Amino acid sequence: MSKRIITISREFGSGGRFIGEEVAKKLGIAYYDKDIIGQIAEKSGLSPEYIQANAELSPKKGLFAYAFSGRDITGKSVEDMVYEAQRKVILEIAEKEDCVIIGRNADFILKDRGDVLNVFIHGDMTQKMQRICKLYNVTEADAVKMINDTDKRRRTNYNFYTEQKWGMATNYTLSLNSSVLGYDMCQQIIIDCTKL
Amino acid sequence: MSKRIITISREFGSGGRFIGEEVAKKLGIAYYDKDIIGQIAEKSGLSPEYIQANAELSPKKGLFAYAFSGRDITGKSVEDMVYEAQRKVILEIAEKEDCVIIGRNADFILKDRGDVLNVFIHGDMTQKMQRICKLYNVTEADAVKMINDTDKRRRTNYNFYTEQKWGMATNYTLSLNSSVLGYDMCQQIIIDCTKL
Repeated sequence: MSKRIITISREFGSGGRFIGEEVAKKLGIAYYDKDIIGQIAEKSGLSPEYIQANAELSPKKGLFAYAFSGRDITGKSVEDMVYEAQRKVILEIAEKEDCVIIGRNADFILKDRGDVLNVFIHGDMTQKMQRICKLYNVTEADAVKMINDTDKRRRTNYNFYTEQKWGMATNYTLSLNSSVLGYDMCQQIIIDCTKL
Repeated sequence: MSKRIITISREFGSGGRFIGEEVAKKLGIAYYDKDIIGQIAEKSGLSPEYIQANAELSPKKGLFAYAFSGRDITGKSVEDMVYEAQRKVILEIAEKEDCVIIGRNADFILKDRGDVLNVFIHGDMTQKMQRICKLYNVTEADAVKMINDTDKRRRTNYNFYTEQKWGMATNYTLSLNSSVLGYDMCQQIIIDCTKL
């Protein structure tokens, strides 16, 4: 079955977001990344700023604290409400149009559809660090800390909501090391795989 | 850097071995799978039959028993000796010629070379089961058991010797779901990626 929806999960600094944006441009399809936030905010009643800070990342604490923090009498935390709103928005988008969706556990949320290509982009630490230094104008040490912290929060969020392990090859249709393959090759492989 | 050595790790039943063999044929390069066994036997002094049964798989017991079983006064078990012989053979092969190497932790053993493309082939249980039923003429239940048992032994062996987690996307340059992409597309992507 041809793949009309592409989800891109990625390590911080691997260029996954950039690769996804280029693929969307080349295929002439919609691209969802930060754009998705307004829609989630609308559905959840929370501020776009709050969503931006929290929708994909676990709070800055461990999984144990995360699992039990600030739950109301129904057992739902604010994070759960954000996640539920996000899930609905992603299901609606997938129904509505061909698109690339970056992050937000979209691979898991859309797992029952046959028309989704799930991609994981990862990279080598040296290349990721150099990219983050340049993009955010930070020292190498700060870049490494940003990479480790961001991926830890993504991993915690993903593992908590999906009961899968973030970064396991079996979650994704294809996983690519962008440091070895280069961004152009990654884009080309993804585009080729939509035409199955 | 162009990739002259391709290592293929794979889930049992995913067609990874077949894909590797076809890639080797199409590229006109050497192919190492069972052929490697005679060489390991020669280096280790063990029988080819013993290597066939043990070189890539952990014994049929848990990791704990595996780690502590039958070690001599130097702390080396027979499995360790097989592994060491296997490691030497793989390093020599990589030095000698362009090739495809199936399994045997070759991705980890060759990690210090820049000319290696590490591939992981996985698949969906239904397709893997159907393939194993046909290849081995077994029931669906037996096929599932064979898949789970074989992958568990591969995982235990890999995790023990590499200190990495078998099946994590970051171990491999590319990971492909052969059930979704098809064997032809997997071969094509691998061949394209050798020409970087």
